[in-house]
Amino acid sequence: MPAYVLGHKIPDSDSICSAIALAHLKNSIGESAAPARLGELNPETAFILDTFGLEAPALKTSFAGESVYIVDHSDRAQSPDDLSEATILGIVDHHKLGDITTSAPLECWIRPVGCSNTIIKEMYDYYGIEIPKAIAGIMMSAILSDTVIFKSPTCTPLDIAAVEALATIAGVEDAKAFGVEMFKVKSNVQGTPVRELVMRDFKDFDMGGKRVGIGQLETVDLSVFDPIKADLQADIARLKAEGERHSVCLLLTDIMQEGSELLVVSDDLSLVENAFETALVEGRAWLDGVLSRKKQVVPPLEKAFA
Amino acid sequence: MPAYVLGHKIPDSDSICSAIALAHLKNSIGESAAPARLGELNPETAFILDTFGLEAPALKTSFAGESVYIVDHSDRAQSPDDLSEATILGIVDHHKLGDITTSAPLECWIRPVGCSNTIIKEMYDYYGIEIPKAIAGIMMSAILSDTVIFKSPTCTPLDIAAVEALATIAGVEDAKAFGVEMFKVKSNVQGTPVRELVMRDFKDFDMGGKRVGIGQLETVDLSVFDPIKADLQADIARLKAEGERHSVCLLLTDIMQEGSELLVVSDDLSLVENAFETALVEGRAWLDGVLSRKKQVVPPLEKAFA
Repeated sequence: MPAYVLGHKIPDSDSICSAIALAHLKNSIGESAAPARLGELNPETAFILDTFGLEAPALKTSFAGESVYIVDHSDRAQSPDDLSEATILGIVDHHKLGDITTSAPLECWIRPVGCSNTIIKEMYDYYGIEIPKAIAGIMMSAILSDTVIFKSPTCTPLDIAAVEALATIAGVEDAKAFGVEMFKVKSNVQGTPVRELVMRDFKDFDMGGKRVGIGQLETVDLSVFDPIKADLQADIARLKAEGERHSVCLLLTDIMQEGSELLVVSDDLSLVENAFETALVEGRAWLDGVLSRKKQVVPPLEKAFA
Repeated sequence: MPAYVLGHKIPDSDSICSAIALAHLKNSIGESAAPARLGELNPETAFILDTFGLEAPALKTSFAGESVYIVDHSDRAQSPDDLSEATILGIVDHHKLGDITTSAPLECWIRPVGCSNTIIKEMYDYYGIEIPKAIAGIMMSAILSDTVIFKSPTCTPLDIAAVEALATIAGVEDAKAFGVEMFKVKSNVQGTPVRELVMRDFKDFDMGGKRVGIGQLETVDLSVFDPIKADLQADIARLKAEGERHSVCLLLTDIMQEGSELLVVSDDLSLVENAFETALVEGRAWLDGVLSRKKQVVPPLEKAFA
């Protein structure tokens, strides 16, 4: 029986690509492993897998009795609901340390870098395993996605070096140009239901005992959201009520302007205003320079909610 | 201001030696770091530092406002009381994943091996930093201690390889023979107050909401405890009452016979009997083959308490 390699709920490109890349590495060093996904692929991830000719991992949401490797998170809220009934063999992640615990020793490769795939690149090097061309391509893509083509404050020299090495293996001549193509796919919101957009990259956090949902949509041109901004705002209000959340934030990130428009609904808007030292107008504010949920949005909110 | 590198409360040789070794590595790669200890040295650790001519880390128990690296644990119960007011930069550990969380990304080097120093050896290799002779000596000693000279079920081929490489650097010809000398120091209980013995390697765990203390004493000859066994049993009963613990276990481990005599006081002895599938006689039982608290004692107890 293989160990499953799984990312977080509402998978993004890093969660899917790192599951595939880590499963391949584990198989290469003699451990049986298979990637899994906890939800539907987003358009960006589908574009990446299609470009490099790889199949999506099988959909699987229950892991009771299984052995698992966890990638791209260490929070129970983002894990399968029955994770406590699985045996966690390891965690590869680049976020803050969450509340997952284990009852036996395990391996954790957690680094303050921009993307889980940067760490998996390090693991391939550690074990001296050659990275197949297609897997190098999806690993490179995930790093470009997570680091917003190196613009995110989460990006480190290790991420840039990993992209350069992976692009060479994948035969991609201009990684940055490929990244812009990828973000154009991500920016295409026409005809997509509003709820699907809000949920495309949405995570729940426990902040001081309160449930706070934070979504993010990245675009190369913020104006694509102009016709639907009111709908997005109405939808996060519904999402707040449905999930008994204290607050829901949606970041509309413009990677060219390098900042995000924040949409918020909350039981206490002043907490959010304090977190970002800004005044909300009709539940909105422009956060200049804010590209990273992980580094620029979650920590100040956690501090405000503490 | 340096980052402090600190092990767990009631430090053992791994907590002290890995703090020294990791602080040296961090300084070697351009990060300012200093080792700290949360309590008194035990006789084994004092012997190790004395043998290789190194000083004990400074005693420091409060870390509010400081940056820290944590070694040899990831449980809040074993950390400084004000850890939540410190910034955790990283964790190096070989135990199950505990309940420490962070509000920012960090580095975790956690591996299912026998000793934190085995992981730190890997880190030195990763960064290409030469290990000084004295530091190699204490790292080797800590691995021999934690793996009970390779006899513990926690011992892996990586631990053995690390000891061999470190012994060469340290100029120690027969690492195993050195290990036996070290355990003789550890076995010397004459003239030591009973409470000091019980607390020498004692850890509290949260098991299903109950506080469970587990101490361990390792010896090359179990009969050294014969004259004081009743006193030890009386003392863990006092310790249970003082700390409002549900249970206190004390393992008297004979590394030559390769097993442990378990002494227990508990609000519910049947939980402990179920965990080890054994009958306690006057709160005692012989656990054949049990050498490792981490791998053979904590997991079955956690299951029984769940």
